[in-house]
Amino acid sequence: MEQALPGFRDFYPDSCAVRNHLLRNFCRVTRTFGFEEFDGPLLEPLDLFVEKSGEEIISQLFNFTDRGGRAVALRPELTPTLARMIAARASSLKRPIRWCNVGEHFRYERPQKGRLRAFWQMNADLLGEGGVSADAEIIALLVSVFRGVGLGADDFVIRISDRRLWLDFLAWIGLSGEQMPSFLEIIDRFEREGSRELKKKLAELSPNLGPELFAAINDLRQCRTLEDIQNAFGEQNLPRVGDWEKLLQLLDDLRLMPFIQIDLGIVRGLAYYTGFVFEAFERSGQGRALAGGGRYDDLLEKLHKTPLPACGFAIGDVTLGLLLQEKQLIPAYKAAPHVFVIFSDENRKAALSICQDLRDRGISLCYDLRGESSFSKQLKEAGRSGASFALFVGTDELTSGNFTLKNLSSGSMQTLTANELFGAFD
Amino acid sequence: MEQALPGFRDFYPDSCAVRNHLLRNFCRVTRTFGFEEFDGPLLEPLDLFVEKSGEEIISQLFNFTDRGGRAVALRPELTPTLARMIAARASSLKRPIRWCNVGEHFRYERPQKGRLRAFWQMNADLLGEGGVSADAEIIALLVSVFRGVGLGADDFVIRISDRRLWLDFLAWIGLSGEQMPSFLEIIDRFEREGSRELKKKLAELSPNLGPELFAAINDLRQCRTLEDIQNAFGEQNLPRVGDWEKLLQLLDDLRLMPFIQIDLGIVRGLAYYTGFVFEAFERSGQGRALAGGGRYDDLLEKLHKTPLPACGFAIGDVTLGLLLQEKQLIPAYKAAPHVFVIFSDENRKAALSICQDLRDRGISLCYDLRGESSFSKQLKEAGRSGASFALFVGTDELTSGNFTLKNLSSGSMQTLTANELFGAFD
Repeated sequence: MEQALPGFRDFYPDSCAVRNHLLRNFCRVTRTFGFEEFDGPLLEPLDLFVEKSGEEIISQLFNFTDRGGRAVALRPELTPTLARMIAARASSLKRPIRWCNVGEHFRYERPQKGRLRAFWQMNADLLGEGGVSADAEIIALLVSVFRGVGLGADDFVIRISDRRLWLDFLAWIGLSGEQMPSFLEIIDRFEREGSRELKKKLAELSPNLGPELFAAINDLRQCRTLEDIQNAFGEQNLPRVGDWEKLLQLLDDLRLMPFIQIDLGIVRGLAYYTGFVFEAFERSGQGRALAGGGRYDDLLEKLHKTPLPACGFAIGDVTLGLLLQEKQLIPAYKAAPHVFVIFSDENRKAALSICQDLRDRGISLCYDLRGESSFSKQLKEAGRSGASFALFVGTDELTSGNFTLKNLSSGSMQTLTANELFGAFD
Repeated sequence: MEQALPGFRDFYPDSCAVRNHLLRNFCRVTRTFGFEEFDGPLLEPLDLFVEKSGEEIISQLFNFTDRGGRAVALRPELTPTLARMIAARASSLKRPIRWCNVGEHFRYERPQKGRLRAFWQMNADLLGEGGVSADAEIIALLVSVFRGVGLGADDFVIRISDRRLWLDFLAWIGLSGEQMPSFLEIIDRFEREGSRELKKKLAELSPNLGPELFAAINDLRQCRTLEDIQNAFGEQNLPRVGDWEKLLQLLDDLRLMPFIQIDLGIVRGLAYYTGFVFEAFERSGQGRALAGGGRYDDLLEKLHKTPLPACGFAIGDVTLGLLLQEKQLIPAYKAAPHVFVIFSDENRKAALSICQDLRDRGISLCYDLRGESSFSKQLKEAGRSGASFALFVGTDELTSGNFTLKNLSSGSMQTLTANELFGAFD
């Protein structure tokens, strides 16, 4: 009883401030890109998630039957809710739709470094525009969000790949549409689990061609430039080259190339991506992905018969928080009022009235609640509180209209009129 | 599948903005009172809530057994988590402890006007200070939060009562400690359900004295001034009068009397209150409570053997949102970038670079993502976007270094250098 459930966090004020720092930065930066914040329920019908991700998802969910007999689940991701909400008003929403969200999500997984059962996610999605410029825009937003918390090109990289290109390639080497999803899954796990599974699968599929296919897939996986990609396809005509050229040109125009790495090893596990996909990592490549996203043009049609091209990304608070900590980019936490007001009981009425006025002007202040009468004891309390300033409201001050403000770190004193006081903290 | 669960809300951007307006106001105002934000898990061990509120609470919970066999529940309120977190670090936290939270909570109840199954709550608690000045401070904070969203003394009232006084009174009229909780519950429901239940209970208790006891209880229930209270006790010595005098003096010093009504009819259903209690209502008294709170000095000792006086309150987003709507105090929602940037393809690189610089300076902007080449089509798109300004980045502008900014509502044009541009939206 004395602690949170495994994989859940108690946010004491200092760690709550870190979380809020991430979330507020995201809200601030998305606003500069014209995104609107939305939110959906934390609890949704279980089917909403199954329809998108299949029955397999259930084993990772916090799901249960509610008192009304409904099969429900805590949301593991936002996209199904986003798709439902957009589809319900598709005809009336102004396009392109730029929506973002900060919210909590839940997965029943083994808690480990960088992965918890409850986590905050920052989602941004751009819907209604299928062109490459929308992909560039969403990648630009992701870079700006990271830059907003002080990360630079030395700290992180966005690895861009192309689900469409992979599908073209798998078709070219002779795989059927049905075979593709399981291949993409294996390629997705390649970096973590090595080549064994892929070799086995290829041997099953075609005992003779196995080694050649493996080499071809492995070549594409290792492409890091547009030229690499063209070479991997040999003489084969490659319809995606034009889109790649356009994307890279836009990213260059947006001055984003220092943050970008082409990396065909990324395919993203989720089945619904249809075009460019990307993942952000710490620059050295260590640790879990900081963010992931891509284009999913078919999802709204599949789920809600509402054809609408879309792309987006999600950033998790856990891995990003760990990276900022490591890079010493977490702002120091200061738990203190700005001003501590000191007064004697006889001047309480006048002093509290001034306190109310200062607070109405947005100034953070406290005063002694125990009714300490001596100024020196109150001043000690002011120091203990961590306040930056002590404001004295004594009989002399109230008579003269001049108030003494003491800087509690330097010890310097300042005399201010009431009006000056109200402006002193702007 | 096409809608949220009953009692849960889809927050489209306009309603999300209303919710955020309430939550951000709360965060802003609590900061002026020196409060620190914290948060806890949305999912907690079921026992955490049962230990505080008894087995009866379970029927109102979203509770289930997780995959690890743990009995868990979505939090219906924040206080048990707060108590756990404070108790775990009681010796190291600087006192008084001023903590606040904005977070989602869940109750399985019949959804109706002003009451949903998922709701946001704004909690503030002041712990470690048992004196009346802490009660006054927490009431002052509540008033400031309401004033912060534009509500005035004509719009709301905080009704203050005293659980301690009620216990003194029930002891005086001869009830045992065991009998008191059920009486307080009946008195709590009196306003909604009338006197029948109370009369029945009193007749059971003491067939002869029933009517007299009822009259005495009803008298106290109707007290609206300190004098009323003193009269209700007749000659009886009343230890709480001193505390009441002190509280009212402090509230007057804080200029809060226009927002306050003594109302002994309030007792608060929850068993754990020990002193002053209060509820906020729309001034006419209609509708559900906007907020409720009070002193709970025994809870941390009872739950965690950590004696710590405490008082606090919670505001729900649903009733407060309805009141602001009724009073037309919801800020108009504007879903638009501030600036729409217009450029031709040949100047894309320079234009996108300027866009990045403007966004880095916090300016909200969009541009056409479809690659429209004509300025007039882009200008039309700018109008459709709802942007306040259109910024032209053409060859002339780039050559001369003078940029044209069009005010899209007035139609007026302005010519600015790049540097002026970067400062134009501050």
